[in-house]
Amino acid sequence: MTLPHVHIIGTGLLGTSLGLALRRAEYPVTLSDQSPTAVRLAADMGAGTAAEPSTADIVVVATPPDVAARTIVAALDTWPEATVTDVASVKTAVLAEARTLTGDPVLARYIGCHPMAGREKSGAIAARDDLFLARPWVVCSDEDTPADRLAAVVALAEATGAAVVHLDPEFHDSAVARVSHAPQVLASLMAGRLKDMPADGVALAGQGLRDVTRIAASDPGLWTQILAGNAAEVRAVLADVRADLDALIGALDLEPGALATIAGLFAAGNEGHDRIPGKHGQAPARYSSVTVFIDDTPGALARLFTDVGELGVNVEDIRIDHATGIKLGSVDISVIPSAQVTLTEGLAARGWWVPEAAIDTEGRE
Amino acid sequence: MTLPHVHIIGTGLLGTSLGLALRRAEYPVTLSDQSPTAVRLAADMGAGTAAEPSTADIVVVATPPDVAARTIVAALDTWPEATVTDVASVKTAVLAEARTLTGDPVLARYIGCHPMAGREKSGAIAARDDLFLARPWVVCSDEDTPADRLAAVVALAEATGAAVVHLDPEFHDSAVARVSHAPQVLASLMAGRLKDMPADGVALAGQGLRDVTRIAASDPGLWTQILAGNAAEVRAVLADVRADLDALIGALDLEPGALATIAGLFAAGNEGHDRIPGKHGQAPARYSSVTVFIDDTPGALARLFTDVGELGVNVEDIRIDHATGIKLGSVDISVIPSAQVTLTEGLAARGWWVPEAAIDTEGRE
Repeated sequence: MTLPHVHIIGTGLLGTSLGLALRRAEYPVTLSDQSPTAVRLAADMGAGTAAEPSTADIVVVATPPDVAARTIVAALDTWPEATVTDVASVKTAVLAEARTLTGDPVLARYIGCHPMAGREKSGAIAARDDLFLARPWVVCSDEDTPADRLAAVVALAEATGAAVVHLDPEFHDSAVARVSHAPQVLASLMAGRLKDMPADGVALAGQGLRDVTRIAASDPGLWTQILAGNAAEVRAVLADVRADLDALIGALDLEPGALATIAGLFAAGNEGHDRIPGKHGQAPARYSSVTVFIDDTPGALARLFTDVGELGVNVEDIRIDHATGIKLGSVDISVIPSAQVTLTEGLAARGWWVPEAAIDTEGRE
Repeated sequence: MTLPHVHIIGTGLLGTSLGLALRRAEYPVTLSDQSPTAVRLAADMGAGTAAEPSTADIVVVATPPDVAARTIVAALDTWPEATVTDVASVKTAVLAEARTLTGDPVLARYIGCHPMAGREKSGAIAARDDLFLARPWVVCSDEDTPADRLAAVVALAEATGAAVVHLDPEFHDSAVARVSHAPQVLASLMAGRLKDMPADGVALAGQGLRDVTRIAASDPGLWTQILAGNAAEVRAVLADVRADLDALIGALDLEPGALATIAGLFAAGNEGHDRIPGKHGQAPARYSSVTVFIDDTPGALARLFTDVGELGVNVEDIRIDHATGIKLGSVDISVIPSAQVTLTEGLAARGWWVPEAAIDTEGRE
């Protein structure tokens, strides 16, 4: 079977990473970008050949989201036999705008996609051929989508190592508003509250604050475009958050009944938290955690994980915390509950400082 | 020098952990609790002797925060020579309530503290003798605090391995509202929005959502008490968050000027994020990250960290992500920027699959 010729329009982070991944899978790839420098860099990196081909089997639009729709329609016109797809992080608005520019028969050749991969860095220079590896790649098709075109797009996605998920555009946009866009907003608003704090106060920050605000380091320009492209759905989620926030602020007057309101909101948070899938993408993970204190020096982690490996235990996650001002660190190792006793006793027997481990049957960290 | 006799009232997580830490440091420790079972368990664990002593040098009140003030005042009365301290996570409200119950001359023997340590688990059974190790231990004293009593409390805190920080109660309460209480609220409200989502949608969750909502697994009862004890400060921060949220929701109408509002809120989040100290408690960390793909099997991490150790590189942090459905994982290793090239090239030379690493000069993950 001959692999289809893929033309990628837009050689930023996603377009260049896609080119690298497809070249690795031996697809023929051509590249274009409105910036001659950007396309030359991507080609130099090995993402494909800089060219505007007269024919192509699949055209991937990897422009910024605000010009995706018009680029898709132009591509459908330029390559009248090609299947056209895109990588924009919002799907309904792109399709609606494309519909104002061309007809449904033409759009039957368009299959909207959203590979859920990215970095806080941007541009071809940040591209990686394994950016999509093991990430969800959302494919939006409907009953009018020709089966052979759909199969070709799915094969392209799978060639990058991504896991294909079929969703309709409205469902996709509503879901990403909740699992991606609203969390970004809340992380940024929380971090914004630290801007004018005295340094002595910020110094009390612990791991909780670090986790909640980690993604607040993301690019404001990109996120402004993403929110603008999914404004209605994001607004709906944030309105629900605001209603809960109002209820909580009101309850802080501590009038009768207030404590039940506060506790109810925290309990709802417990329930929602428990619905998030584990890292393996299956049911929410219930791991046990073993804490080990180590010298904060080169080699200590190697000795620790050599011992962990010799005990035959598979590590699900690791969290390192360094002491303030002293050469000591703690390592929390998450394992499946049945491995917890083996690990605790085995490491202690090998001379590691392992505090009494509490079996975490609730899966609460 | 003879170590002072410490009496601990309340043998939950904090009181029992403190007893274990002080016994390890060879302090004489007695314990009491309104539950005979709880105090016997703590004594059996080695946290001290169950007794109501006739004299004590330092009395530590480690009850739930809502009964801390009355317990402090009772302790000042029962042990008229003793220094009395506590571990409640709010300080102004405790002091104000104590003032309604006794006079300033008596309260000169009280020194409020807040060791910033805890777990999502509670009770003596979850106690650990190193719970306070390398954590901030806030001490609230004023000009009327006798120097010898202050020194004794500081020595006690340092005996647990904690890092003592001197703050006034109002400053403490305002700071923890921002770095601890408000992040908990936002994490819980975000997680609450996932409660009624279709499973197909929650399945799109990535690391960002996991980080933002991790602490939403915390105990609703405890957090309700903490918020109630610091209601005014928490309310003030949340009111600021609500004002920003209102501005953002308003901007999602996408009228002229809206995009600048949205971008401004994200930029403020960048600024606030950059103020959070690194894990070593110094200036915000600027680490470079090296990603390595590994077989998701026992032994792989040991081989990896053996090689990392042999390259002489100190690991600042680790993030593991497992692929969905396939036996492959990625490990992000954070190191100081000057070690990044050594690590990338060294691991690649040893046969590891290390994608091109982008030097992360912004410290953005």
